[in-house]
Formats: sequence, structure tokens, C-alpha cells
Amino acid sequence: MPVDMTVGQYNLVYNFFSFTIAVMAASTLYFWMGRPLVAQPYKIAVTITGLVTFIAFYHYFRIAESWDAAFTLANGAVEPTGKPFNDAYRYVDWLLTVPLLMIELILIMRLPQKETVSKATRLGVLAAIMIVLGYPGEVATDDGTRWLFWVLAMLPFIWIVYELVVGLSSAIDKQPENAKGLVSAARWLTVAAWLFYPIVFLFPMIGLTGATAETFVQVGYSVADIVAKAVFGVLIFQIAMRKTEAEYGGAKASG
Amino acid sequence: MPVDMTVGQYNLVYNFFSFTIAVMAASTLYFWMGRPLVAQPYKIAVTITGLVTFIAFYHYFRIAESWDAAFTLANGAVEPTGKPFNDAYRYVDWLLTVPLLMIELILIMRLPQKETVSKATRLGVLAAIMIVLGYPGEVATDDGTRWLFWVLAMLPFIWIVYELVVGLSSAIDKQPENAKGLVSAARWLTVAAWLFYPIVFLFPMIGLTGATAETFVQVGYSVADIVAKAVFGVLIFQIAMRKTEAEYGGAKASG
Repeated sequence: MPVDMTVGQYNLVYNFFSFTIAVMAASTLYFWMGRPLVAQPYKIAVTITGLVTFIAFYHYFRIAESWDAAFTLANGAVEPTGKPFNDAYRYVDWLLTVPLLMIELILIMRLPQKETVSKATRLGVLAAIMIVLGYPGEVATDDGTRWLFWVLAMLPFIWIVYELVVGLSSAIDKQPENAKGLVSAARWLTVAAWLFYPIVFLFPMIGLTGATAETFVQVGYSVADIVAKAVFGVLIFQIAMRKTEAEYGGAKASG
Repeated sequence: MPVDMTVGQYNLVYNFFSFTIAVMAASTLYFWMGRPLVAQPYKIAVTITGLVTFIAFYHYFRIAESWDAAFTLANGAVEPTGKPFNDAYRYVDWLLTVPLLMIELILIMRLPQKETVSKATRLGVLAAIMIVLGYPGEVATDDGTRWLFWVLAMLPFIWIVYELVVGLSSAIDKQPENAKGLVSAARWLTVAAWLFYPIVFLFPMIGLTGATAETFVQVGYSVADIVAKAVFGVLIFQIAMRKTEAEYGGAKASG
């Protein structure tokens, strides 16, 4: 943990954690309260959309508590308490939420059952492997190990991007006219938001360390998580509403 | 409690507990939110599926708190606080959840009422006896007592395996075509996941002690619980959806 952190940096990170907690809790409620309005085939996708932000809400709560326990503010300065800040909550979160994000994107497309199972399994497993391969690099202290696991984790990442950009093209073409653009946007949003993580991972290897880099990493991960989970979730919910409109002629009344 | 535990081992166990808490909470919500989508005869099975993960969520929350209270992290080392880590939460959990797991598997098969009652009672009681017989061995300090209760608890376990593998065969053959494979998979998943527990129980008797063994036991139990409860639950829910599809022509609208 950097010891040269200013009070301003400490507070900026803390406030971003609190902001993220509020966003994740509010999005969860939005998705689950909206669930009765979407048609039957989209309910599980909307349930999972809310589960992703619920799980992130839980982890940001833990992250904020750990941040709080790791430092004390006294006499206008930030002092480490000796209790380490537990950054591993992020990986624990991603291990669950990243595969679920893949699954919600596939479910919302409502492909034939066989295709749904095969695509959701492939993308879910690739996403989990990507996270598992990233962690040994994250906790490594030497640059060689960090680079090795960065490269290893990029392989499933590139495969996922390929599946999203190329593999889903023909399925997206078959989506209802009023939802096609949003489904394609959800896919590109995923690629763009996910690119942020491997870039941040490189920071310590290119000399970006200390309190300023740490502040940027914590704020950056929070923003990336909000985009990849809550904003992405709003798109998924919107797709569910549009497809309900296109296929069932309007919002459902119950369920 | 081992006193030679490293910070890495302490954190690994802690993060696995937190991961398990998130998994159990998320699965509970998934099952209960999915409950309106399954047909009437499967709703109770899905309710119980969520109860199992809910009970496990509660106990993992307690286990994580107990782990937190049992050690302090200071100056990069793990120090026992003198407060013992309460491992008995696991047995309390299993005493409730293991019979319920048997009951949910029988309920999802929708056998004739008489058969449901007899099979659920037999498997539920055997499961409870297995847990009760395991506990005196777990807390025993001498190997002789540990072995004795290990053998005693294996008797109901073997009976359960026999009931699942042989006793349920003809009932599984009568399941709808689209669910048969999943019901059989749920049964085998149970046998495989449950095998982990008696093996871990043997560790201290074959000389595996100290911090490394303790880390493996805690992480291993967490993974086994996730597989036996949450992954098993996803199978049960999937079976309920498929049978709803096969017998009622689609997901239900309300309930």
C-alpha cells in the first residue's frame, strides 16, 4: 500500500467506492422491479442482470470497509493502520460476475436452446479462465510473472472479443428490428469496458506506482465496473422491453 | 488452530469464505426469483433449493466472522487472538441442508405421492444420521475415535449412494426426455461432491496437519459446498424449467 497518499486522494477513492455502492444497489432494484414488465423468455436474463449488480454491491461494500480499516485520518494526514487493503475482493467479484455478464447477453438474444447452452457455456468458461489467469499476475511481485499472466489472460480475452464481434453477428442480424441496434451496442460496450482492465493491469510494469497510480486504479476500476455492469444492465433491460414490445405487443402486466 | 499460518493462507481462506457468501446469497435470489416460472408441482422443490443456499449463506457469514475474530493481521504476520475459530457451524449447517438436498432431489422427480414420502423420509433420515455420526469424530482428539465415527458415518453414506445410483434408476427412466439427463447428472453430482467430505475428514489421521492442511480443508469444504448446494441447485432449477416446458408447454406466467 502506498504511504504517500494525500487526504484528497484517500477521500476521492472512498467517495468513489460509496458512489459505486449506491449505483449497484439502485441498479439492482431497478432491474428486479422492472422484471414483471418483460415477457417470460427474458425474465431470467433480467434476474441475472440484477444478480450481477447485487454481487458487485456486496463486494464494493466489503472493499469500502477494507479501505476504511486500512487507513486512519489524523492531523490532516493519511496513516496506514497496518491492516492491508484487500484488493482481492475485485477478483472474487469478477470470477462470479464476468461469466454471468456473458450469460445475460446470450440469454437476452433468445437463440435456439442448443445454441444458447453452447454459447453461454463457452463464453462463461472463457470468462472464468480469463479471471483465474489474471489473479496470479496481480499478486505477483516481479514484472516477469505479471507479464506472463497478462499474456495468458489475454488469450481467453481475445477469444471472447472474437466470439462477441464475429461469432454473434448472424444471431444479431436475426434480432427484432427495434432491438438490433441495442444488442450490437451491448456487445461493443462489453468489449470497450473490458479493455480498461488489462490496461490498468499494466500500470505497475510501466512505472506507474505510488499513491497517484493507486488512486487512478481504484477510481478507474470503479468506473469500469459501473459501465460493464450497471450501464450494460440498463441496455439489457431495454432490449428485454423492446423485444417484449416487438414479440408480444407491449409490456406485460404480471409475473 | 495452526499457528504457522502465512498472511497469504489467511487471506486465501478469508477470500474463499467471502466468495462463498456471495455465491450462496446470489443463488438463493436466483432460485426464489425463478420460482414463479416453474409449474405448480415444482415450486416447493425450488423453494427448498433456495432454502439450502440461504441456510449456507447464513452459516458462511458466521464462519467468516469467526475466522476474522480468530486472527489478527499485524506487521505482515498472522497472530491467533486466542478466540477459537468455530468450525462447528459447518456441522450445524449440514445437519439442516444435507437432508434438504435429498428432499429437493426427490421432489423434483415428481414421483407418486407414496414413493415421494418413503424415499424422501429414508434419504433425509439417512443424511441426518450421517452428519450426526460424523461430528463426534470431528471433535475427537484421538485417532481411534476419529476412525470409529468415520466408519460409522460411512455406513449411511454408502446406503445413500446405493439409493441414488440403484434405487432411483427406474424412476429416472420415467422422467421426461428433455430432463432425464439432468436428473441423472444431479444424482451423480451429489455422489461426487459428497465424496469430498469423508476424504477431508481423513486428513489429520494421515498426518496432514498444520496451516497448509487447514487452508486446504477450509477452501476445499467451501468449494464442495458450492458444488453440492449452488451448482446442484442450478441443475434442480433447470430440471424444473424443462419439466414445466415438457408437461405444460412453457414457462408459467404467475405464482
